[in-house]
Formats: sequence, C-alpha cells, structure tokens
Amino acid sequence: MENKIKVGILGATGSVGQKFIELLKNHPWFEIAELGASERSAGKKYSDATNWIMKTPLQKNVADLIVKECLPNFESKLIFSGLDSSVAEQIETDFANAGYFVISNSRNHRFDKDVPLLIPEVNADHLELLNAQPYKGGIVTNPNCSTIGMVLALKPLHDAFKIKKINVVTMQALSGGGYPGVPSMDIIDNVIPFISGEEEKMETEPLKILGKLDNGEIIFENNIKISAQCNRVAVIDGHLETVQVEFETKPTKDEIIAAWENFKGLPQELKLPFAPIKPVHYFSQNNLPQPKLQRDIENGMAASVGRLREDSLFHYKFVVLSHNTVRGAAGGTILNAELLKAKGFLDKILWAEKV
Amino acid sequence: MENKIKVGILGATGSVGQKFIELLKNHPWFEIAELGASERSAGKKYSDATNWIMKTPLQKNVADLIVKECLPNFESKLIFSGLDSSVAEQIETDFANAGYFVISNSRNHRFDKDVPLLIPEVNADHLELLNAQPYKGGIVTNPNCSTIGMVLALKPLHDAFKIKKINVVTMQALSGGGYPGVPSMDIIDNVIPFISGEEEKMETEPLKILGKLDNGEIIFENNIKISAQCNRVAVIDGHLETVQVEFETKPTKDEIIAAWENFKGLPQELKLPFAPIKPVHYFSQNNLPQPKLQRDIENGMAASVGRLREDSLFHYKFVVLSHNTVRGAAGGTILNAELLKAKGFLDKILWAEKV
Amino acid sequence: MENKIKVGILGATGSVGQKFIELLKNHPWFEIAELGASERSAGKKYSDATNWIMKTPLQKNVADLIVKECLPNFESKLIFSGLDSSVAEQIETDFANAGYFVISNSRNHRFDKDVPLLIPEVNADHLELLNAQPYKGGIVTNPNCSTIGMVLALKPLHDAFKIKKINVVTMQALSGGGYPGVPSMDIIDNVIPFISGEEEKMETEPLKILGKLDNGEIIFENNIKISAQCNRVAVIDGHLETVQVEFETKPTKDEIIAAWENFKGLPQELKLPFAPIKPVHYFSQNNLPQPKLQRDIENGMAASVGRLREDSLFHYKFVVLSHNTVRGAAGGTILNAELLKAKGFLDKILWAEKV
Amino acid sequence: MENKIKVGILGATGSVGQKFIELLKNHPWFEIAELGASERSAGKKYSDATNWIMKTPLQKNVADLIVKECLPNFESKLIFSGLDSSVAEQIETDFANAGYFVISNSRNHRFDKDVPLLIPEVNADHLELLNAQPYKGGIVTNPNCSTIGMVLALKPLHDAFKIKKINVVTMQALSGGGYPGVPSMDIIDNVIPFISGEEEKMETEPLKILGKLDNGEIIFENNIKISAQCNRVAVIDGHLETVQVEFETKPTKDEIIAAWENFKGLPQELKLPFAPIKPVHYFSQNNLPQPKLQRDIENGMAASVGRLREDSLFHYKFVVLSHNTVRGAAGGTILNAELLKAKGFLDKILWAEKV
Repeated sequence: MENKIKVGILGATGSVGQKFIELLKNHPWFEIAELGASERSAGKKYSDATNWIMKTPLQKNVADLIVKECLPNFESKLIFSGLDSSVAEQIETDFANAGYFVISNSRNHRFDKDVPLLIPEVNADHLELLNAQPYKGGIVTNPNCSTIGMVLALKPLHDAFKIKKINVVTMQALSGGGYPGVPSMDIIDNVIPFISGEEEKMETEPLKILGKLDNGEIIFENNIKISAQCNRVAVIDGHLETVQVEFETKPTKDEIIAAWENFKGLPQELKLPFAPIKPVHYFSQNNLPQPKLQRDIENGMAASVGRLREDSLFHYKFVVLSHNTVRGAAGGTILNAELLKAKGFLDKILWAEKV
Repeated sequence: MENKIKVGILGATGSVGQKFIELLKNHPWFEIAELGASERSAGKKYSDATNWIMKTPLQKNVADLIVKECLPNFESKLIFSGLDSSVAEQIETDFANAGYFVISNSRNHRFDKDVPLLIPEVNADHLELLNAQPYKGGIVTNPNCSTIGMVLALKPLHDAFKIKKINVVTMQALSGGGYPGVPSMDIIDNVIPFISGEEEKMETEPLKILGKLDNGEIIFENNIKISAQCNRVAVIDGHLETVQVEFETKPTKDEIIAAWENFKGLPQELKLPFAPIKPVHYFSQNNLPQPKLQRDIENGMAASVGRLREDSLFHYKFVVLSHNTVRGAAGGTILNAELLKAKGFLDKILWAEKV
Repeated sequence: MENKIKVGILGATGSVGQKFIELLKNHPWFEIAELGASERSAGKKYSDATNWIMKTPLQKNVADLIVKECLPNFESKLIFSGLDSSVAEQIETDFANAGYFVISNSRNHRFDKDVPLLIPEVNADHLELLNAQPYKGGIVTNPNCSTIGMVLALKPLHDAFKIKKINVVTMQALSGGGYPGVPSMDIIDNVIPFISGEEEKMETEPLKILGKLDNGEIIFENNIKISAQCNRVAVIDGHLETVQVEFETKPTKDEIIAAWENFKGLPQELKLPFAPIKPVHYFSQNNLPQPKLQRDIENGMAASVGRLREDSLFHYKFVVLSHNTVRGAAGGTILNAELLKAKGFLDKILWAEKV
Repeated sequence: MENKIKVGILGATGSVGQKFIELLKNHPWFEIAELGASERSAGKKYSDATNWIMKTPLQKNVADLIVKECLPNFESKLIFSGLDSSVAEQIETDFANAGYFVISNSRNHRFDKDVPLLIPEVNADHLELLNAQPYKGGIVTNPNCSTIGMVLALKPLHDAFKIKKINVVTMQALSGGGYPGVPSMDIIDNVIPFISGEEEKMETEPLKILGKLDNGEIIFENNIKISAQCNRVAVIDGHLETVQVEFETKPTKDEIIAAWENFKGLPQELKLPFAPIKPVHYFSQNNLPQPKLQRDIENGMAASVGRLREDSLFHYKFVVLSHNTVRGAAGGTILNAELLKAKGFLDKILWAEKV
C-alpha cells in the first residue's frame, strides 16, 4: 500500500467524483488520500458530506476522510478533477500552477492549445503537448462522454480509410446529466430531444482528438465534417449512438470489421490496469449492441459496435455504445492517469513527493 | 344513427383493431356493425374474444357483437383492416374482389401498382388510381407509422423547395410493435437499435407517396435519396424522429417555418371529422417536441416539429413527432375513409348498400 | 364570463398551482383572475415565471397575467392555495384574516380545530366548523393525496359496517412528490420504500375526516386503528393502495360491493361541476384497478376499487386507486370550493365582491 | 476440472435455466455437462436453441452442448430443474425414480410429504425427509421467489420471539414472471396488483419451511397466520416486501436488529461456495433497502432489511428485499445442492457415478 501513488479528488461529492472513488477502490497504482469539494462540504467527514449514490458501498477508509476545500494545498501531487464546469477552470489552473498534475473530466481546458484532449488508444502522442505547458504541474483532459465511444470506434477506420464525414444521432443515458439530473416525471415514457451544449462538443472535440502534432502543436483534423443530434432517453447508463460515415475511399464491410477487431493502442501494449483487452467489440447480431446488455463489457471500458451496413447517403452506418460514466468519464480519466504514469510524465511530481 | 355508414373491422381483436374501435366511438359518419377476427375468436362475443388493452372502456354495443371469420360475407360494405401482414394480403384481396371497400393499415398492398398509399393531406390525388383497380370494390392503404409523421412534415417543404436527400433516425414507441410486443425486461433501462423491416419501409414509402400521377400511374419520386435508422425506446406512444434534409435550393429557416405553419390539405378544406386543424405544429422551444408532451396534439392527428437548425452535412436538421397508433395507424386509416367518402368514392358501394 | 367568480391562485408556479390552472380552464363557475407566487416570480408574466409542465397548453389569458406576491391584497375573494408547506401557514392565515376564503391543498391548517379537512362526499357536514373560525374570511383544507382515495372507498363501508382497523400499503406516483421531485436515476428500475411524513398523514387524517360533529367540534374517530406503509414507484400519476379492513360486524362480500356501488354524497346530489357521477367504481376483474388504466376515470375524480377478498388477518382486503394530482390535490380542492359555493358559504365574500 | 461433479440442467432454455448456466460458470464443485429442454430444442446446439437473455456472455463450452430431451437418460446424476410447472411434476418424478438427484426450482413437488422445501439457513434439518423418499434418487425443492427473502428475515425472529402473525405486501420484479413475461406496454408507468398463484404460495410455504420434524414428518407451523398481497412493479430484479409481524412476546427493536445481525445457518458454518457471509443485512437509513441499490448484496444471495419500526396493528413493520432470480431461484437452488453435497446426501449417486 505504501508504494501506491497518493491521489486527490476534486469535486469529490458530485456524481463523477463518486465514480472516481468507486472505481479507484483496489486500484493497483493509485490510492485515494485527499478529497476536495465546495466550502459547504469542507471540514466534514466525507460520508457526512456526500449523498452516496453509487451501487457499491463506500469504502470505509474514504468515508472517514475529512473533505478539504479545493485549494492547491494538497499533499497528493496527482489530482483527479470531477469539478463542475462553473468552477473547474480557475481551480484546475491554480493546481497546475502550484505543481500538481490535474487529470480532468471537466470541459473547461479541453481546447487549451497546450492541453491534450486525450483518449489513450487514440492520441497518446498528444501528451507531447505537456512539454509546452506553462504550469509547474500539468493538465490533461478527457473528451465528453458522448464523444469518447464514437471516436474509439472511428479511430481505426480513420487510420485505415480516412474519414471525410461523420453524422451521429445519440440516445444518451440519464447518468450523463449528473445528479439529481433529469426529473423522473420528465423522462419516464418520454424522450427529450435536446441536451445543452452536447451537439457542439461532439462536432468539435473529434477534430482535436484526431488532429496531428506538428511542431508541438495540434493541427485540427478539419477535413472531417461532423453533424451531431443529441437526445436523452430513459436509460440509466450507456450512450447509444447511430453513426454514418463517409471515407476518402470506401472500404468493404469486412475491412471495417477487421479494423475494429484488430484495433489496439498504447494502453493495450502497456497493459495498463484499466485498459480493456479490446477497445472495440463488434457484434454481428442485428439487434446489438444494447445499453443494458453491452455497457459493462470489459468493466465498462470498451466500446461496442454493431449493425454495420451500407448507407445510401454516406458509405456506411452503424451503432456504437459505450458506458458514459466509466469509459466516458471517471474510468477514462483514470486510464489517462495510468498512461501518464506509464510514460513517465508523472516522474517530476512523484519525485518531488518522495523527497 | 340510422344514417351512419355501417363498417366492418378486420383483425378486430388486435391492437390496431382495438384502436379502430376506440376511435370510432361516436364517429359522426361511421358506425361499427361487424367485427372479423381469426377462427379462434369467431363465434364469440367480442368482449370475450378480446383482451381489451385500450385505456377507455369498450363501448357496450361493440362488446356484444359476435365476432365473425374474415370471410367476404359481411353486410357492411366499408371495411377497416388491421389484419396482421401474415394474412392480410389474401383476405383484403378477397374482400375487394367481392365488392367491399377495404381501407387498410396493413403493409401488404402498399406497393401494388393501382393501390393508393394515402396520406390525405399529401397525395389525395392518388385516389385516381382506384379507377384502375380490377376489384369490384377497392383497396386503399396507409403508410407505416414511422413514415406518416415524417412525410407530413416534409410535404410542404418538398412542394416549396424540392427535397433531394432525407436522413432520418427514429426513436419509436412500444405500441408500434403491437401487443404483447416488446417484453418489459428487454426495454426498461434500454434501447433496442433494430426494428425488423422498418428501415426499408421508411426508405421506400415516401418515394411512392410523394410520387406524381402520370397517365393513371404513380411515377415514384426517385430523385429523393433516403436513409433511415430505426430504434425502439421505452416510450408508450409517439414516434420521435430526427430528420436531416437537403433541398435543390436551400431555403431560409423562416421560409421553412412558414411552409409548415401554412400547410393545409384537402382534409382541412373539407373539414373532415378526423382532420387536424393544422397538420403540422411548429415549436420554437429548444427541447420540444417530446412524445409525452405533444403526442396528443389535435387528438393525436397532427405532427409536431421543432429544433429546426442549419446542418453541416445537409441543409437543415429538425425533430418530428407523431402519434403512432392514432395518426400513424387507426386514426390515419379513418381519415383515409373519410376522404373517400367526401370525394364520393364510396358511392358505388354505399349505393349498393341502400338498395 | 362576467358572472363567474374571480379566483386567485397562491403558489401558482408550482406543480399543484399549475394543475389548478389546467383544471380551471373552462370552469363554469370560477375564473382565474390573479396568480400569486414567490418574490422571485412576482412582477413577471406568468408564462415567463413558470416552467409549465402540464400536458395541455397553458391558456393564453392566464399566460399573460402578471404574477403577484402572496400578500392579502388580491381583488379576488376566493383563493386556491397550492403553497408549499414551508410558507403556507402564515400566508393562508393572513389571507383568511383579511377576509379571503382560502381553499387549500397544503397540510398546515389541516388539524386546526376549526378548519374542515374536507372530502365533500364524506364529511360535508364539517363545514359547520367555519362558523367557529375567527377569520373575516375562512380556511378549508383537503386531505393528503394518499388519504383521499382510501377514505372515499372506506366511507360507505364505515357508515354501514363500522370500521375498527385499517391497514394500508401504498405504491405512490411520482407526481405526488412535486416537481422536479424524484430524480430519474433514483426510480427507474427501482422502488423507494419511504416518503417523508406520508405514513403519519395517512394514520391521522382519516380519524378527523371520519369524525363526528359535536357542539361545533370534531370528535375524532379514534376507535379506528390505522397502520400505513408508503412506497414510491415508477408511475407518473395514480396512487395504488392495498387496504385491509376489519369491521365491528363482518359484512358479506356482496354487501361491501353494494355499499360501494350505491355510494353517493352531496356533490352528486348537487351535481357539482367537478363531482364524479359515482365516487367509487368497483372492478371485478382480478388484475384491476391499475394506475394506467383507471386513473382517469370520471376525469380523475373517482376512486377505483377491486380485488376484494376475504383476509386471514383482517376481514377483507382490496385495492384502491385514485388520481393523486386530480382527486388527490387540485381537483379535490376545486370540488371543495364548489361545495362551499353551492352551500352558500361564499356568499359573505361574494357579496362583498359585488358591492 | 475432472474432479467436479457433472450436472444436468432441465428447462435449460428458459429464464431460470439460463440463470443456472450463468451462475454455475466457474463453480468450484459443479460442472455443467448436459442440458435438457423441450422436444423442439432437443438435438440443437444450445446456442442455437436458446434466446440468451442473461447479461454476461454464454460460456463457450456450454454454448456448444447439444440439447437433450428431458428423459432420464442423462449421464450426470445431479440434476438442476428449472422446468415449467406444466411439465415439471412428471419429469422430475421420472428422474428421481431413475436414480437422479433433482434439485428443483419448480413448485410441483414443494408440498410432497417427503420432499424438503429447503432454505439452507432455515431448515437444513428437513433434509432428513430424504430418507423417506421412495425414489432411487431424490427430490429437493426451493420455495417461491417471494417467500425466500421474507422467510430469511423472519427465521431468526421466529426462533427468538415466536411469530404469531405475518402480513406481507409485495412489490415484485419483472424477472419473476419469466421471459417474455410482462409486456412493456402493461407495466411502464403502471403497477399490476395481481400475480397469479403468488399470494397462495406466500401464505402456505412458510408454514412448511418453519415446520418441525417429528418422526420423519414435517409438522406445519400452523400457529402462524399469514396474509399476502402481491403486486408487479416496473423493476427488473429484486422483490421488495413490506412485512408486519406479531410475536408471542414483543421484543425490543434492538433485540430484533441483533437477531438479524447475528443470524447464521449451516451454509455459513460450512462455508458453502454460494453462501452469503451474512444471510440478512440490516440498514438503518430510512429509505433503504431499495431494489436497485441492495439487490446485488453478497452476489444477490443475502436478504436486506430496513425501516424497522413499531406498528399500531402488529408489533413491528419493516421492509425486506431479496434478489428474486438469484437467492429467490437459481442461486438458492445451487445453494441447496451445495448443502446436499456437503452433508453427504449426494454420496449414493456420486458413488454410482464413480464406479
């Protein structure tokens, strides 16, 4: 236990913060040492400060931690941030300036020029941006929950066949809206065809993620045109998305399936603890994937694809599913931290810690 | 009462048949006189033969009718068919040959050369096809429940701006799958990204409906390219669809809204009993229409549209909603019958009746 | 229109307030003239101040009303209160003191000695309490939404066979919790076996409602012992309750059914506009009543009962259902007002109005 | 692997059969060797014969088994039966007569004089009945899914304080109705206050389970009076039940909690693989247990209790929850088999197997 890296969690009482805590239980490398939340919670025992909504019980050692304010006076140098976007920008900047490494799930720094918008299987090379960061520490972000699954499915196709157009319509889970989130009276026996800000994220984030490094900068993949339409459905976990795609050269169906089946990235090579064995699982049955049946595949860290078929307006259409609070949020952030650790990016802060 | 037209209902014990019965209660022109169902039900009182699943109570006079077999020996000359597609083809043909006028909700005859695939606001002129039918009676069909709402919304746009491409993704209600339909364990906390045969219907039916009469034949509107993706969601009634559309000339947003607002067809002019005052209702709020909130507009006979916005891959995207068992099935069929009556197409059979 | 009684609604932006507005549309006697809400809303147009969550559209003339603060300076002398219990006590008292007649859905004054806890079919004679009220105006309350349906079903049995014990377990709808109320993530695929304060209300309110007037005071029916257990289920509208009951003398099953079938009260005699024709509907099918199928019976103003059978621990057990936001809240309150009007209790304030 | 006991599963394609298969994956003692189902499925590969509805993927080695007819020609001597009650009676008798040991989840033999109705923590001594069975093999049954959780919670109370009356109202999960079971249109936004045969089971099974052995016979615990009311709610897994109980001597609340906390049975002593560490978990929070939050406690093998409070009609009331397809069906049956194995009851058939 003593050899684990101590981590702090910002926004610890929120739903993303709770998911960090749930997923980090028994993590082989990381150990929760400090929790930060709003002034209102600071000074309380965590179990008193939070309304625990995870399904697995809160681990005793975390329950007893006294919540701190989100000020850069943590002992842990590695910080997971699940802060609300209304406060994340400044707090994360403050921590990074003070020498902390902030691995964030918040959207605020995603488009900072020198901040990687990271999916480890997709653009691990973007970590090079860190060298350009002005911070004593650093900031790494992960994409929006509805972006991650889609980009995991599209990355191997883009590498092989060059994507020109992406059209996506989502049916998104309730847990993506935080807690308390959508009132039950609004969504039982209903669909809400609008999620604030979501379409804009899906139409821009992939361009940065799939961008190329050039002289220490990301050149956005602006050759790809994206249109997104986002809907909220009565599903607890798991974003399902219908995707249509057009390539520079149209591949065969078998070539696409092969690209998915063979897709692997650095997390798989490095056998990172949270890495799925296969980032993308292809299903040939005509009614899969479904949120309830496939969202927990590989502990929620893999995307599932299916219903691949030719399309009359684009080249192909298919369905992709991924677990929005695991791969799409806390789990994805943890994988980001694992990659940073494995690639040595945490050495400067960890070295500091050990002295 | 005596002056009402007596009607028979085929497939009376199924969910579409029940909806016919519910909607025809107090109809000013039509009166249910005979019910047909499978051999298993024939000979029983209707209330004993059916598992009534409508929300409003079964009217007494219909409850007491003795169910008949679906043989062309009905006294009523006007027949509503909610028959299952496994048996509809032959039975409807037999009735039409025997001099009955069959207004059908089944898919079997939809693409017969001389059978109108009718949405009264859209292609009332297609009734001319009836003159070419070889039957002593006649057959008129209505489109699939997921097609009707979309085409109502697209018709005024096509008339004004000429549509070239339609891309649609549906989130369809459970009642569209008949009864018992989707098991609860399969759909609570879930989405099923597949409905057998549905995408094909949506990709072909609009081409006939929007087709032009030429020398007594329909020239399909094959200049329009359509792609459809169909999903089942945990909604009781109301199909919600995201639609993207490209025109020959791109109109302004205001022009589109005006086209919707001003859209009227023959049913409105003729003030048919089941005609909505406005076939299409436009909502400017960014989270409407929603199944639970708008499906019952104009007694379920109007389509609702909203979220109209420019699109990066097509010209515009928007959302359309319509009630799948009312406008999309039994109610639409009744409106078809009303149009036939108002235009005099039932005269030959009604004249026979009166002799 | 001019001859209608002008009414004000307190708590107009909340879910009960909205239901008042929805139900009073086209009311033959009452006309909404003023709306009161919190300071935050006061001064705004109602349509801007409220997040309208009813299914039917907000009537134009109400949408345009300017919201007032809940101060006793209304012109309308008849006041419907849907105020939150955190503020209802004082505001309602202030209005009553100032000469207004407050018909309230809030719980605060329910157990005031001189305030009727009114179900018009059950204890219309309790209106006599009004004579003892110290107010220039008056206050009348209605019971909790889970109490009303049960007492409607029990009143005719108590009259005929004298009830000794009531055991009730509820499965209550989400709309009973107000808006936004229960988060969707908490209730989809779940039951919550707790509703704060609800069991206490069900165990005490019937004792007052079924109490007898004696010298201008209510003698509580303390011979009845009640135990209640309350659960929240994933139903939008309609509280379903399993009830067990023991009598002084055990009646036959047929006697109980007859008591229900023949039950009528003053609202039925007086043919009040919101009175159901039959306050209690008995169903003999073994799987009825169900919230989705029976909640809207008699426009939501009647209770439905079924599954009557002998019990090994009490005399009988049965199931009762009633619509919690109609009969159990706004609709019940409106019926209370109608009774007051019909019995002349509003004359003093209405006379004042007309001068 | 070779040392594991080979087992056959009857009714392998049904929902209980599938749950057996899912739960037996990696079982330390048992290995699935044969699958039996109806004639229609016999001869097919299991993966072709079944519509797999479990959430975890079907293990390869089982998928490839060829389904047999349910005739007593299996090689495996230990048989798990998930047969439908319409066929279970004869088939199970035939297998037992032919020397097989049938551990059944079906209701048919539950009240046979010489057949244990077994909950291992509650009445392990009832296994003595097996000595009186006329079969070359044997039959052991487990109680109905709604009975098991309640009896687990009541057993320690009965031992300590002697129960006289039990009143129970259930809110039962959809998976208890098999597959396809309840249609989604019937249960979304609804409760169904009826489950055929369920109340009778709950009112009689506990009397046998809690009965005493006397001269090789079970003397039913007829001093306990039970009343049950059963409802179906929109929950996937987990039966929630409100229970009221009266004792010979009324204990304190603390005594009841202590009885639950200290409750252990033979499975815990023997550390059987499927035994929960604690059969009953008590929750002091006022809104627990809830199906979604506690059903998976101890892998679904423990009951959860909460909301213990004094009652005005009985001594106490509380809420109990248990996983209906795990503890309440397949998992309970497996625990029964483990107990039989551990107590040596399988020796005669296993010895035969090894010769």
